[in-house]
Amino acid sequence: MKAQVLHAYDDELTANNWLTYQDVPDPKISKGTDVVVRIGGAGVCRTDIHVIEGVLRPHMDPQGNSLLPLILGHENAGWIEEVGPEVEGFKKGDPVIVHPKIANGTCIASRKGQDMHGAGSFPGLDCNGGYAEALVTSARNIITLPKLLEPKDVAPYANAGLTAYRAAKKATRDLLPGQYALVIGAGGLGHVAIQVLRAMCAAEIIVVDVNNSSLRLAEECGADHLIKADGGEIDAVLSLTKGFGADAVLDFVGEHATITNGITMTRRAGSYYIIGYGGELRVPAIDLVLSEKKIVGNLVGTWAELAELMELAHRGLVELETQEFELEDANKALQQLLHGKIRGRAVLIP
Amino acid sequence: MKAQVLHAYDDELTANNWLTYQDVPDPKISKGTDVVVRIGGAGVCRTDIHVIEGVLRPHMDPQGNSLLPLILGHENAGWIEEVGPEVEGFKKGDPVIVHPKIANGTCIASRKGQDMHGAGSFPGLDCNGGYAEALVTSARNIITLPKLLEPKDVAPYANAGLTAYRAAKKATRDLLPGQYALVIGAGGLGHVAIQVLRAMCAAEIIVVDVNNSSLRLAEECGADHLIKADGGEIDAVLSLTKGFGADAVLDFVGEHATITNGITMTRRAGSYYIIGYGGELRVPAIDLVLSEKKIVGNLVGTWAELAELMELAHRGLVELETQEFELEDANKALQQLLHGKIRGRAVLIP
Amino acid sequence: MKAQVLHAYDDELTANNWLTYQDVPDPKISKGTDVVVRIGGAGVCRTDIHVIEGVLRPHMDPQGNSLLPLILGHENAGWIEEVGPEVEGFKKGDPVIVHPKIANGTCIASRKGQDMHGAGSFPGLDCNGGYAEALVTSARNIITLPKLLEPKDVAPYANAGLTAYRAAKKATRDLLPGQYALVIGAGGLGHVAIQVLRAMCAAEIIVVDVNNSSLRLAEECGADHLIKADGGEIDAVLSLTKGFGADAVLDFVGEHATITNGITMTRRAGSYYIIGYGGELRVPAIDLVLSEKKIVGNLVGTWAELAELMELAHRGLVELETQEFELEDANKALQQLLHGKIRGRAVLIP
Amino acid sequence: MKAQVLHAYDDELTANNWLTYQDVPDPKISKGTDVVVRIGGAGVCRTDIHVIEGVLRPHMDPQGNSLLPLILGHENAGWIEEVGPEVEGFKKGDPVIVHPKIANGTCIASRKGQDMHGAGSFPGLDCNGGYAEALVTSARNIITLPKLLEPKDVAPYANAGLTAYRAAKKATRDLLPGQYALVIGAGGLGHVAIQVLRAMCAAEIIVVDVNNSSLRLAEECGADHLIKADGGEIDAVLSLTKGFGADAVLDFVGEHATITNGITMTRRAGSYYIIGYGGELRVPAIDLVLSEKKIVGNLVGTWAELAELMELAHRGLVELETQEFELEDANKALQQLLHGKIRGRAVLIP
Repeated sequence: MKAQVLHAYDDELTANNWLTYQDVPDPKISKGTDVVVRIGGAGVCRTDIHVIEGVLRPHMDPQGNSLLPLILGHENAGWIEEVGPEVEGFKKGDPVIVHPKIANGTCIASRKGQDMHGAGSFPGLDCNGGYAEALVTSARNIITLPKLLEPKDVAPYANAGLTAYRAAKKATRDLLPGQYALVIGAGGLGHVAIQVLRAMCAAEIIVVDVNNSSLRLAEECGADHLIKADGGEIDAVLSLTKGFGADAVLDFVGEHATITNGITMTRRAGSYYIIGYGGELRVPAIDLVLSEKKIVGNLVGTWAELAELMELAHRGLVELETQEFELEDANKALQQLLHGKIRGRAVLIP
Repeated sequence: MKAQVLHAYDDELTANNWLTYQDVPDPKISKGTDVVVRIGGAGVCRTDIHVIEGVLRPHMDPQGNSLLPLILGHENAGWIEEVGPEVEGFKKGDPVIVHPKIANGTCIASRKGQDMHGAGSFPGLDCNGGYAEALVTSARNIITLPKLLEPKDVAPYANAGLTAYRAAKKATRDLLPGQYALVIGAGGLGHVAIQVLRAMCAAEIIVVDVNNSSLRLAEECGADHLIKADGGEIDAVLSLTKGFGADAVLDFVGEHATITNGITMTRRAGSYYIIGYGGELRVPAIDLVLSEKKIVGNLVGTWAELAELMELAHRGLVELETQEFELEDANKALQQLLHGKIRGRAVLIP
Repeated sequence: MKAQVLHAYDDELTANNWLTYQDVPDPKISKGTDVVVRIGGAGVCRTDIHVIEGVLRPHMDPQGNSLLPLILGHENAGWIEEVGPEVEGFKKGDPVIVHPKIANGTCIASRKGQDMHGAGSFPGLDCNGGYAEALVTSARNIITLPKLLEPKDVAPYANAGLTAYRAAKKATRDLLPGQYALVIGAGGLGHVAIQVLRAMCAAEIIVVDVNNSSLRLAEECGADHLIKADGGEIDAVLSLTKGFGADAVLDFVGEHATITNGITMTRRAGSYYIIGYGGELRVPAIDLVLSEKKIVGNLVGTWAELAELMELAHRGLVELETQEFELEDANKALQQLLHGKIRGRAVLIP
Repeated sequence: MKAQVLHAYDDELTANNWLTYQDVPDPKISKGTDVVVRIGGAGVCRTDIHVIEGVLRPHMDPQGNSLLPLILGHENAGWIEEVGPEVEGFKKGDPVIVHPKIANGTCIASRKGQDMHGAGSFPGLDCNGGYAEALVTSARNIITLPKLLEPKDVAPYANAGLTAYRAAKKATRDLLPGQYALVIGAGGLGHVAIQVLRAMCAAEIIVVDVNNSSLRLAEECGADHLIKADGGEIDAVLSLTKGFGADAVLDFVGEHATITNGITMTRRAGSYYIIGYGGELRVPAIDLVLSEKKIVGNLVGTWAELAELMELAHRGLVELETQEFELEDANKALQQLLHGKIRGRAVLIP
């Protein structure tokens, strides 16, 4: 089959043909519960660029290059092509979305449903992913799509959407009418989070972004208050919230200043959820102690949460803007993403 | 001032002038934190009829008639008329809604915010209530109304709405996308609960009612599936929920058959919330054990929850249908309620 | 191998040789993740008697006798004998305890860790169990024992102990210092629950039992207050709890009167956990509504909870009294159990 | 009456007679629910030194010196001396402990039981405290002591003990058997936290401290594993926890290195509770995101929590070591505290 393969890291991102479009062996069933998925769409993610530039090497590939050559793609959806002899409940042709983690199903984290914290592998990150015509994974790793959803339209939910969903869902478990949720950054993840908040709680939603078009998208997604990040955002948020700050702050930017500002804009006893991760968190201990604020890390989401998100998508409660590319044009899609030219999320179609 | 006073219980409800419209002494400030509220509207509730027929006598008036004469009215809203010397944060003219319980503020239940489980009194049930031109209560007992809300339009939220809110809110804390909430009975409380579920979670909402007009109201309130209670409702609910039943069932009827059916329609590990209370709950222990279902009692709500509900009302996320009567016509309103002639909730206006 | 096989139900329990000790084929690996466990001990449980008398036939064997012949035994522990080709993390000789449910690992309940509510099978109940020299199960279904624990000493934890653990653990999640936990019935399950409460919360523990020797056992397990169930237990509990009742009531008896009494002895806004299941729950709806009590069903426990219980056992925080029988003497053990002659739990040893 | 009064801040802590022992007017009842408490003991706290050196001036006294002269003392216990005309449930002579915050009882935080986050005042910090023969406070602010507890023995629980209790209690709500709680710093607060963990959960308790005598105290309090903080503590903790780190870390030191180390020693998806507050928290966002750790601020505790702690003390489940001083010797006690000469907590006795 055809696939897009990474043969070498590019630390400075100076090349423009990072991936090679080439023939590779077809993926094969090796375990009783394996499944081959024919790819309908594979989302293109900033994390792919981080893989290319080697940022994740210390975590994923500590020996250096032992992972390469690697087929990228960790946001995958398609149709069942073949199932192992012990697979139950799936058959050839079923449309599915692929959870980003193949958990082993037996470690304690996995037994509690916390797949992303247990043993296992990440296709597209530490084994071959979905920038290809097909992918082998486990029956534990896939979710049948509701009828109305097309694989190519939902692929980016597998990771970007799931991450936004989990963080926003955590916030909704505490948010009550009369409280405020503040979303920092209404981009690919943030605009999903706004819709999730809208669907799952009755807090008022405030969105802060540097970008006017993002603020317009936020408004379409259901934000109640839009604030341009022009230096006056802290005052604006405090003023809107009667001086208290927001009960939940979801930070999809995570750069130094947004982190500090985000914590400042969090109400006493409230929670600051960090999803974006470029920067460093710096805060005097006394500020956390006197205010009793919580800082909450967020990582992808569980299989059950991806199923929940598919329900929201199926019922039209969240929508995702995508831009389609041929699989052959993967490098073009990555370049456009790197240069801020993608509106919504790019999806590769074999 | 004028008030409607109950002088004698009527066990068989055979009279039709239960209350006497008469002059009574004006309510007076006696404690530093007392407040006199001029009544803007007082909701008329089935519980008032239960008081008249003496159903609550064993709980509220165990000595027999020691409570009488009593001014009824436990769903009150109006404007501050006078404040005690230690009251802070309220002034004459402020529009307020009155929480149904005057909690003492110092018992452990009250210190945890669970006012309805602590020491205190219930105006209209064990001391004088709001079927009058004014009422004396405590500063701890009132909530300032948001600007857009009129006392007479929100009075029934103080008890009926609050009860529906608390039960529905409990359910929303667990309900996730892809799950089902079943509301049994879309009447005065049920139609508020449907709106609360709609605003605060993304579960699909199923409504079962015997009454076509209630089902139409349910649809306007945001129900996803309407089922006529004609004997086939269990099959219909199981069919809709892929044979599993609903994850949360809210029973606003609470008669024998609805209780049994309601528990049957609850999914394994799900919760059955009981709010209506005419009947008896009967279920073999083995059924609860094998299914691990929960049965959850529900009683009014906290002060904080009434404030939350006011936010939902203020933002138009819940609406209440009311029918206005002169205070002088209290008996007429009660008779119409007894005979099922009230659409929404009746409100008395002095 | 040798096994104890049920060939016919005995509705009246009039026979005394229900099971036949006979040769059967050795269990075999058929799936990649299958595991054969050599039995070290198999707990003898009242549920085995219910299987023999056909009480569970409507649930487990609706076609009549299609399950028979069946090897009983759902409380199993032993050593790994053989592993399938895809099993990781286990090897021949490892001591293990077997969770009572072989969950499929892919249904939504299973993905959330709620194995007992998902698809799967129950060895000893709907497929061959552990009254035998060996058993085939799945790698998903077993937990490696800490070094200090012997299979024959812990086998009854697999079901009886796990059930007691889960119910008591639920209660401990809410119980705070100054609150009361009431355990009704300090038998095989109850005496484990008392130890779990002791280890996992600081509530005061009250135990009610009809039996003096059970009350002595309760005291050894850490109960703070012992009450003989002689008709005065309600008054005694209310008096101990300043008239309020216990915040959590765990009912391991579940007969009619204990259920009614148990709910009466539950504090306002408290929880009544039902684990025993002989009787029927009957309570006027108004009593649940005015008190806002919760009634909570309890079914076995999760894989993770069995691992937690093994930790408690390993550290000596819970102990189990067992009485050993040869596998050959299964009928004798069952008879003694039926006639109340077993102290603690009986265990069959091949 | 006699009192110890602060007349001037001492930024460098160079003086040694910070407080003046002098006659002041007796405290007086001014509101209907006021209470005068005759002091039995007043705890001496590091925060008192921070008040003296003006560290809290920006928060408590932003105008400069407007708070002075001030009677210090925010850890108070004694006996009711006089009650206002509206006080119910307390009478002269009752032994009581005084919660550190006089909450107004009507703001939303207060209505949810979160007194420390609402409006109100802190005796000893922004109004006169308990370094005196008596104190005026509110009936909402005191808890009757169980019979066995003497005011002078429990006074430090009012703040130091309560802070330790709340943080440890939060952790116990999540901790399960097989998990680890790590306490950093077994001093005045830490040794209470260890006892609370011991009483309220079955996690294994690891204690890290620089000080051998603190480690011995930790052992007496029930710690399972003692680790000297000598540079090898991270390796030691990771080794004990199979490489994962502790599920809950409670940091009572809160200096720069302990914060960084504490977060490092926290398990994936675990919680780091910060109570000590000298330092700054610095952590790359990516570390929080990939590990999904939580950082949780902690501030004193609620009235209900102080009542819970009194139950633990009453039952001997927590004990506090105190060192008694005459009220006249307040400066001596403060000096000894400043120079690390106090074992346990110092208490002033009028």
